[in-house]
Amino acid sequence: MLTMQSEGGVCTPQGFSAGGVKAGIKASGNHDLALLVSDRPARCFAVFTLNQVKAAPVLYDQDVLSRTDRVSAVIVNSGNANACTGPDGFADTKRTAQLTEQVLGLTSSSVLVCSTGIIGRRLPMDKIETGIPMVKAALEPQGSAAFAQSIMTTDTQMKSLGAVLKTSAGEVRIGGACKGSGMIHPNMATMLAFITTDIELSAEFHSEFKAWVNESFNAISVDGDMSTNDTCILLANGASKISYHDLSISEQGEFRRGIEAVMRELAIKIVRDGEGATRLVEIRVEKAVSKEDARKIGRFVCTSNLVKTAMFGQDPNWGRILSSAGSAGGQLVADRTDLFFEDIQVLQGGRPLDVDYAKLREVVSRKEYKITLVLNVGESNASSYTCDLSYDYVKINAEYTT
Amino acid sequence: MLTMQSEGGVCTPQGFSAGGVKAGIKASGNHDLALLVSDRPARCFAVFTLNQVKAAPVLYDQDVLSRTDRVSAVIVNSGNANACTGPDGFADTKRTAQLTEQVLGLTSSSVLVCSTGIIGRRLPMDKIETGIPMVKAALEPQGSAAFAQSIMTTDTQMKSLGAVLKTSAGEVRIGGACKGSGMIHPNMATMLAFITTDIELSAEFHSEFKAWVNESFNAISVDGDMSTNDTCILLANGASKISYHDLSISEQGEFRRGIEAVMRELAIKIVRDGEGATRLVEIRVEKAVSKEDARKIGRFVCTSNLVKTAMFGQDPNWGRILSSAGSAGGQLVADRTDLFFEDIQVLQGGRPLDVDYAKLREVVSRKEYKITLVLNVGESNASSYTCDLSYDYVKINAEYTT
Repeated sequence: MLTMQSEGGVCTPQGFSAGGVKAGIKASGNHDLALLVSDRPARCFAVFTLNQVKAAPVLYDQDVLSRTDRVSAVIVNSGNANACTGPDGFADTKRTAQLTEQVLGLTSSSVLVCSTGIIGRRLPMDKIETGIPMVKAALEPQGSAAFAQSIMTTDTQMKSLGAVLKTSAGEVRIGGACKGSGMIHPNMATMLAFITTDIELSAEFHSEFKAWVNESFNAISVDGDMSTNDTCILLANGASKISYHDLSISEQGEFRRGIEAVMRELAIKIVRDGEGATRLVEIRVEKAVSKEDARKIGRFVCTSNLVKTAMFGQDPNWGRILSSAGSAGGQLVADRTDLFFEDIQVLQGGRPLDVDYAKLREVVSRKEYKITLVLNVGESNASSYTCDLSYDYVKINAEYTT
Repeated sequence: MLTMQSEGGVCTPQGFSAGGVKAGIKASGNHDLALLVSDRPARCFAVFTLNQVKAAPVLYDQDVLSRTDRVSAVIVNSGNANACTGPDGFADTKRTAQLTEQVLGLTSSSVLVCSTGIIGRRLPMDKIETGIPMVKAALEPQGSAAFAQSIMTTDTQMKSLGAVLKTSAGEVRIGGACKGSGMIHPNMATMLAFITTDIELSAEFHSEFKAWVNESFNAISVDGDMSTNDTCILLANGASKISYHDLSISEQGEFRRGIEAVMRELAIKIVRDGEGATRLVEIRVEKAVSKEDARKIGRFVCTSNLVKTAMFGQDPNWGRILSSAGSAGGQLVADRTDLFFEDIQVLQGGRPLDVDYAKLREVVSRKEYKITLVLNVGESNASSYTCDLSYDYVKINAEYTT
């Protein structure tokens, strides 16, 4: 049985400690350096941005993980993305990793680095150098919140979650933290996500991990931009002394659904806290010809400014949804398509139904609701999550300065 | 020699008359029914939306043009898109065409129909029926402005342009009108464009016309949404008694550049009048591996909300431009890329240069400016045009009601 722990986080699983400090990287003086450490090498699964312009830490981590899939720690700075900084920026990342390895007494290539913040500025290495011993000193087994707080940029709320799964072999724990909150779009946006578990996972889980990411962090959109730094890392350290293969078939299913649920909940926290967001909307695409098509159409609708401004205006403007879906490049036949706002059907076979607009307006005035597009051309379904486009989105992004 | 006539329009070429009236389709009571007539059947070239959800008039016109490429008139209503209206909507379009043919004394399949406005509502056919004789009575050889005014929706300015080309065979004229202004994106957005010329063009120009559309109406973006109704129609009626083949090789080149220039100027008028737009920015992509790649990357940058809000905030945030370009799916190598704001270089080989930020801020404070991304991976160039994303864009689209 899986129990979610809203006060949990990356330290919920055994063997992990974490911390966060104010190293002086952010001009605001807020927390900006975080460290996550496993007391033993953990198997690492990772997905990175597909952007062709990759930040130095992404290039560094990909290099490390091409040689090993065991790491012991992740050091994260917020306030500076270390992107578009050339070979000097790469050297800065490498030095950050080496300093962390030194301070923690670890071997080479056992620490990953993540960065988020402004693009195109060199990392203030003096602040990193003084910060690393500070954040090592701040490590604690109850460091989930400090870690989650220190990776934030324009996020207004920290995003952290834990879960405990009781199995016949004993307890297995899952934890996670992530940060948004603009530049959020399928295929990893300016998003960093860290998932931990104390189960032992074999290397075969690499492709499974990608599927979990697709159902969670790749199913959300805030503004359609994919960043240079997006990273999702899972560390499985086996500290529970329980291996995935020790579980019964049904418990294995429970674990997989559990970790996917933790990742999806964390992803949804990002959308809910999207820059300027006032509403969270699930776009459910059903009866598509394939899972890929369902996802493609849902994601496309999620990025339409016309759809998102209508959400902000609390306007049940289904024409914009259908129009957007029709231009997604997936398979859609206009006169077979049904559309629902929650349980209120507005379109049947592409034709508008007489609906009670007062009821419809009540639905779109909710903080969270679901729109379902039934394509009737196949059997595949997918959910995507988006937020509205508000004045505050424009304000936040017009005023965030280079 | 080509002379642009800013006061010109669809009636600049010989043999065309046009008009527009208030038929009562728009709740606002503004002009909403327009008619363009050639005094002889004109060869028609047309490009329509690629949206899989096509409005009734698009389906109707495509059907007509599958049988003939000669048409005599186009009837256009604004205020109602006649989209997502099923077979009834198609019958309404057909009846609109037939009534216009009757009133003008034309044969069947000689009139095209265009609609723009709200999606999902039936056309008010009683208003159309009384409006058609009215707009026929309003036809005049100086009807360019009335026509351009009557096709507007949220446009704040009418978009009309004429041009005269002096050749050794005599004068050839080009004219045009179009409307935006939201849902504007490559591959035809909620955009209607009508180009006229009195030169005679052979049927071979169909593919050439598509290339002109790619360099003009398909090179602009307001909000990344492609509508159900987008249409660009060129009518060449030969009333000048001059055929394209009568021109010298250099005059032929002048004509082609001339018609492309008229179309591009009209397209840019749409961006300049984009919903809430305060700035017009050309995104020039150079030295790409192919024209398609240059266009793909330029268009992608043009739709980035992070880029567009930075433009609104007058922030020379080149990191967002590079990040967006890198996720466009074209061929780009970060450490070969140069970036310029007008003539100020900010990136060389992917590395930031020391720049005078005061000068950079002066550039991005201009009403119109150019950003050039030099990829250095090939030899192909393309320009795309976009506007900023402002509070007013959100306001206009959140409050535009279904």
